[in-house]
Amino acid sequence: MSYDDKIPYKIYLSEDEIPKQWYNVRADMKNKPAPLLNPATLKPMGYEDLRSVFCDELIKQELDDTTAYIDIPGEILDFYKMYRPSPLVRAYCLEKALDTPAKIYYKFEGNNTSGSHKLNSAIVQAYYAKKQGLKGVTTETGAGQWGTALSMASAYFGIDCKVYMVKVSYEQKPFRREVMRTYGASVTPSPSMETEIGRKINAEHPGTTGSLGCAISEAVEVATKTEGYRYVLGSVLNQVLLHQTVIGLEAKAALEKYGVKPDVIIGCAGGGSNLGGLISPFMGEKIRGEQDYRIVAVEPASCPSFTRGKFAYDFCDTGMVCPLAKMYTLGSNFIPSASHAGGLRYHGMSPILSQLYHDGLMEAVSVEQTSVFAAAQQFARVEGILPAPESSHAIRVAIDEALKCKETGEEKTILFGLTGTGYFDMVAYQKFNDGEMSDYIPTDDELQKSFERLRKVDL
Amino acid sequence: MSYDDKIPYKIYLSEDEIPKQWYNVRADMKNKPAPLLNPATLKPMGYEDLRSVFCDELIKQELDDTTAYIDIPGEILDFYKMYRPSPLVRAYCLEKALDTPAKIYYKFEGNNTSGSHKLNSAIVQAYYAKKQGLKGVTTETGAGQWGTALSMASAYFGIDCKVYMVKVSYEQKPFRREVMRTYGASVTPSPSMETEIGRKINAEHPGTTGSLGCAISEAVEVATKTEGYRYVLGSVLNQVLLHQTVIGLEAKAALEKYGVKPDVIIGCAGGGSNLGGLISPFMGEKIRGEQDYRIVAVEPASCPSFTRGKFAYDFCDTGMVCPLAKMYTLGSNFIPSASHAGGLRYHGMSPILSQLYHDGLMEAVSVEQTSVFAAAQQFARVEGILPAPESSHAIRVAIDEALKCKETGEEKTILFGLTGTGYFDMVAYQKFNDGEMSDYIPTDDELQKSFERLRKVDL
Repeated sequence: MSYDDKIPYKIYLSEDEIPKQWYNVRADMKNKPAPLLNPATLKPMGYEDLRSVFCDELIKQELDDTTAYIDIPGEILDFYKMYRPSPLVRAYCLEKALDTPAKIYYKFEGNNTSGSHKLNSAIVQAYYAKKQGLKGVTTETGAGQWGTALSMASAYFGIDCKVYMVKVSYEQKPFRREVMRTYGASVTPSPSMETEIGRKINAEHPGTTGSLGCAISEAVEVATKTEGYRYVLGSVLNQVLLHQTVIGLEAKAALEKYGVKPDVIIGCAGGGSNLGGLISPFMGEKIRGEQDYRIVAVEPASCPSFTRGKFAYDFCDTGMVCPLAKMYTLGSNFIPSASHAGGLRYHGMSPILSQLYHDGLMEAVSVEQTSVFAAAQQFARVEGILPAPESSHAIRVAIDEALKCKETGEEKTILFGLTGTGYFDMVAYQKFNDGEMSDYIPTDDELQKSFERLRKVDL
Repeated sequence: MSYDDKIPYKIYLSEDEIPKQWYNVRADMKNKPAPLLNPATLKPMGYEDLRSVFCDELIKQELDDTTAYIDIPGEILDFYKMYRPSPLVRAYCLEKALDTPAKIYYKFEGNNTSGSHKLNSAIVQAYYAKKQGLKGVTTETGAGQWGTALSMASAYFGIDCKVYMVKVSYEQKPFRREVMRTYGASVTPSPSMETEIGRKINAEHPGTTGSLGCAISEAVEVATKTEGYRYVLGSVLNQVLLHQTVIGLEAKAALEKYGVKPDVIIGCAGGGSNLGGLISPFMGEKIRGEQDYRIVAVEPASCPSFTRGKFAYDFCDTGMVCPLAKMYTLGSNFIPSASHAGGLRYHGMSPILSQLYHDGLMEAVSVEQTSVFAAAQQFARVEGILPAPESSHAIRVAIDEALKCKETGEEKTILFGLTGTGYFDMVAYQKFNDGEMSDYIPTDDELQKSFERLRKVDL
């Protein structure tokens, strides 16, 4: 055997080791994330204000910043058992290829048909919609992982699912669309002519290929105007980070089983769902002063919310129909360059993560996409998993950290989140394989322009 | 909890429970499979005759019909640990949806980037090629699962990999091609102009979109004419079934752990690699009279080798450059209708399985593709996994068996092989979702014509 027999390649917990509660990091945060604001009045939104948009129970979770542990309902645990616990993998082959003394672990969330961690929250949101007696849910999807996850979850609970898919993705990723249809969802390219906001955007920008911010506006409009429907979202929101803590809780439990403590924890960050879920339990210990960890968010250089955005109140959508959130943002009309291939293209960032970053509890780094795909290819060839472009941002930085260890001789333990697989991203891989992928970094002038939408709000 | 707590959804063995030996069912067979014949002389081929085509160690395995257990080398066990043991899943949700007293289990081989069980043999063949000091391997691929698996295995051991991909698949599945390229393989549409046989086929059939049999001929020609290369194959051969017995050995061990004995074992059958691997250890017990099992092969009605083919010597390829095998075959120039969407399109069948079927030790049934995709969709919506069309043949018959149990009230235990995922088969799913999929069954006249190539050989 060429590896340490004491620690297997894949650490699987048993099904009864799936966490029974989510961990709410807000309970431990000294500075709580700022509340959502009503887009019309700019006043903080409470339970009643949000009921036309979100499911009741999910609003409670959204607003609760004091309860540290929240029970996971049995029906959701039953579903989690179909694909969880997810494996925590020791990257022996990558370590060997890099010739590094670092020990690298990754928590792999891609072993389910949605191809990513998104299913962890989709099933919860579909469950509460069903429990509330709703007919269905609406949502947006960009790359398609969230839409796929929600389609699966809706099929499982027998509710309707309407997905607004960014037009460029709808056209370039017909297979993602078909997966959703196979699970019974309706998929509409956005901006569509079905909604008021869609017609407005199409009139103002003829031939537009859409953006995540537009699709959110449409999905919210349909949810609020259709009897028995609510809107659900796959990232950014506090509730989503809460659900995604199953990732971090399992990872921590698996590492503790083998007496391993990570020195560095790395996750890719778009809206923050994966990163927040992975780091929350570790962050809790860090805030409480029980342990210290370096925590690193990785974002695309073409959509650098943390590293070049502003910490301010901004609309969650392009159409300005959604609440405002206080977050690191590039401005709600920021759209990454068309040359940007991967996901992680949301203009803003989870308010929880934004606050933690603002308070100096985590770092952030941005990486360019050709280096991301080079890392993806290297990882695939030795570890056997074809990673999603999103996840490959974390791989890039994990490799960089491991190479630093090679220089210094430090035996650091690195944990990163491998959020999903890249099976539906082969157009981007093809560009990379053909040497036709380019990097793009927005100029300061461009960012300055998109910052114009930000609001100064004194609460 | 809505399910039997004693048996989890997913039975995972630990890494040290991965079988350390493959099981060679030929050692227990009373009637051994007939030997391969030299296409020129029609005489049985021995070790020396096969050395220009296959790797040395693999020839030994191909010819060995007496050793019951063959050690799995440590390097291969290390690789197996990266994605094995694969889960054995209790299909609680499917049982509930069918309202059947049957207990349904499936062995899921799709949790690796090749998306199927093919990796189990690809890694072995790449290993022996590397060990023999070869530069590389050649092969053919149709749907692309085998080509992907071999690309991954070749990247892992650092050898070259040349894939001849059936032209129609090359054009319709560009993403499969890109996965292979990402792993460093070269992928050529077949028939190509690079080989003698390719040029001949192109001249005789201008505009042909190729077939598996043509691609095999090309890959064999390149292997035998290029210094340091050998040909490898993903199905049909005895050696491949041997490697795939990890599936059945793990499934059996996992079931025994919970005291479960299957009544019916179901697998899809194209060339027979999955079916042979799944059933071998159970078949061994059946042959030795220790246990009885119903064993069912499922094949497409559009390519019905078992149910409508002849048990005879036939060429393994269209170009008639490969050895002849005694098998159930539709004739080596049989090509399934273009309307056939899934895989399982090989004209012949594993000689081992052919002999077992001929001896009455297993059953076979053919199913039409619209009913296969209906089963796939039903399965996806409740079990969460989007199955490959190939695997869905087994799902179809497992559901049918479970529905029979519902009628009779029998609590049968059903085990089936879920060989892989359908992420690269969304063109076919789209046809089904749009109601545009049709069924095709070859006429007796068509089969009669393709039988003309069969040879009568008296040994």
